[in-house]
Amino acid sequence: MISYINGTFIDSTAAAIPVNDLGLQRGYGVFDFLRVKGSQPLFLQQHIDRLYRSLAHMRLQLSHSKEELINIIQSLIDQNQLPHSGIRITVTGGASPDGYTPVEPHLIIVQQPIPEPPDTILTSPYQLVTHQYRRQLPEVKTTDYLMAIWLQPWIKEQGAQDVLYHSDGWVSECPRSNFFIITQENMLITPNEGMLKGVTRANILSVAREIMQVEERPVSLDDIRNAKEAFVSSSTKRIIPVTAVDQVDFGIYTDNSFSARLFEALRLLEK
Amino acid sequence: MISYINGTFIDSTAAAIPVNDLGLQRGYGVFDFLRVKGSQPLFLQQHIDRLYRSLAHMRLQLSHSKEELINIIQSLIDQNQLPHSGIRITVTGGASPDGYTPVEPHLIIVQQPIPEPPDTILTSPYQLVTHQYRRQLPEVKTTDYLMAIWLQPWIKEQGAQDVLYHSDGWVSECPRSNFFIITQENMLITPNEGMLKGVTRANILSVAREIMQVEERPVSLDDIRNAKEAFVSSSTKRIIPVTAVDQVDFGIYTDNSFSARLFEALRLLEK
Repeated sequence: MISYINGTFIDSTAAAIPVNDLGLQRGYGVFDFLRVKGSQPLFLQQHIDRLYRSLAHMRLQLSHSKEELINIIQSLIDQNQLPHSGIRITVTGGASPDGYTPVEPHLIIVQQPIPEPPDTILTSPYQLVTHQYRRQLPEVKTTDYLMAIWLQPWIKEQGAQDVLYHSDGWVSECPRSNFFIITQENMLITPNEGMLKGVTRANILSVAREIMQVEERPVSLDDIRNAKEAFVSSSTKRIIPVTAVDQVDFGIYTDNSFSARLFEALRLLEK
Repeated sequence: MISYINGTFIDSTAAAIPVNDLGLQRGYGVFDFLRVKGSQPLFLQQHIDRLYRSLAHMRLQLSHSKEELINIIQSLIDQNQLPHSGIRITVTGGASPDGYTPVEPHLIIVQQPIPEPPDTILTSPYQLVTHQYRRQLPEVKTTDYLMAIWLQPWIKEQGAQDVLYHSDGWVSECPRSNFFIITQENMLITPNEGMLKGVTRANILSVAREIMQVEERPVSLDDIRNAKEAFVSSSTKRIIPVTAVDQVDFGIYTDNSFSARLFEALRLLEK
C-alpha cells in the first residue's frame, strides 16, 4: 500500500513522521476522512472544502491548493487499487522547533481497506449513552478524540455502542457521527451548533427536504424522549438507526420508517 | 543527539513514529518534562511518579517499570552530554490497527538543550490574560494543548505573555504553569482542583510552608484583584512574577517580596 507524506509517495509500512511534530506533541492537527467506492472517492469536493475550512480555523497554512490535493488523492487511488477503502487526510502543526508554535504543516494521506457498507439499513442493536461534554472548537474536525477514546470502557460497561455528547441536556453529536431524530409529526430534527457539520449530514438534509419537513435546531434530551425514530450518520455507515438512548427505547425500523427511506435516498446519491 | 524510541537508542534526526500512532491520529497520549542541570535530572522521581499516574488515568499500559525508565533517562544523559537540557517522555496509545483502540504504547524520550534559567528572579513584564476554559482530564498531563496553541495569536494581540484559564471566574492554571497569589495578609494561595499538579508547584508549597501560611483552595478573579503578588511556576523557569492579570497590575518585585524569597528557596532545593 502506498501513502503520501509531504510531497512523496512511499510504502505505507515506512510512513512515519518526526517525533517533534506538533500533532503528536501538542495534539494540534486537523483531518478529514472520505470513503472510496469502486475506486471513486465519494463527495470528494465536500470533504476537501471542509478540510480547508478546518485548516483556516486552526490557522494552518497548507501550501497545496485544493486541486493539487484532489490530484494526489486520485493518484493514490490509482496506485493502491483498493475498490472499497477510506482515505484519511491529516494536517498537523509541523515539526515545530520550540515545540509550541505551528510551522509548515505536515500533510499525511493514507488509504486503507474498509468493508463495503451494507446496501440495506442495519437492524442490529445500536444503543447510545449520553455524556456531558462538548468538543473544543467543535465546528473543526480536529484530531482531538481524547474524551471519545477515554470513554470507551465506560460505554462498553453500559452495554452501549457509542456515546452521545450533551451540554446541560442539549445534545450535539457522537464522536464520529451526527445525530438526528424524527418526531411523532414526522419532522427531521438535528442539532445546528456545537458540533461538526458532517458531509453525510449535509447530504441527508438535502435528500430529506424532498420528502419531509426538516429543522436544524437545538435538540434536548426531552425531544429524544418524545421522538419516534433516531439515527446517527457517518461517511462509512451512511445511516445507523438508534435502538435506544439511555433509557429511551425506539421501535422496530421497518422499510417504511423514515430512517430506512432516508438511508435509501442517501445510497442512491452515491451512484 | 540521541533519542530513545520503543526500546532503541537512535540518532534524533531519525526519531520518527508510524503515522497510525493514536497520539497523532486521535490526540491520545501523555507526557512529562523534566529539567537536567549539570547532567543531573531534577526531581526525577517526582516526574516519573506523575507520569505513571497519568498513564494509569489514561489506561495506558507501559511495559517498562519506573526503574527501567529511570535507567534509560540516565543512559540518555550519559550519551548526550548536554549539561543544561530538558527531557521529554511521551507515551501514546500506540499504532492502533482500528485507529481508535489503544494498544501497546509508543514510548518516546528526547533530550534537547534549553537555556539555563537565571539564578535570580526575572523582572521583565509578564502579563496574563484570562480565558474561560478547563482542560479535558485536567489532572492528567495529556498532550492536548489544542486551546493553548490556538489562543497564541490572541494572547499576543492582548500584549500578554500567557493565558490563565478560568471557569466561571475560578482560575485553574496556565497551559504550561501553575498559578499562585500572595494575599495582603502574606498568605500563599493556589488552586487545588481542575488543574495539573506541577512538580515545581509541590516543591513551592513545601518550601513555602516553612515561612508562611499556605492554602490550596479555589482562587477567584476577585481574589486576584485583591492580591499583593502573583506568580506562575514551571520546571524550566521555577517562578516567574506576574506583572498583571487582565486589568490588575501588581507592584514591583523586590528581593524582599515573597515571590523572590520563594524563588531563592526553590533554587536551593536543586543543589
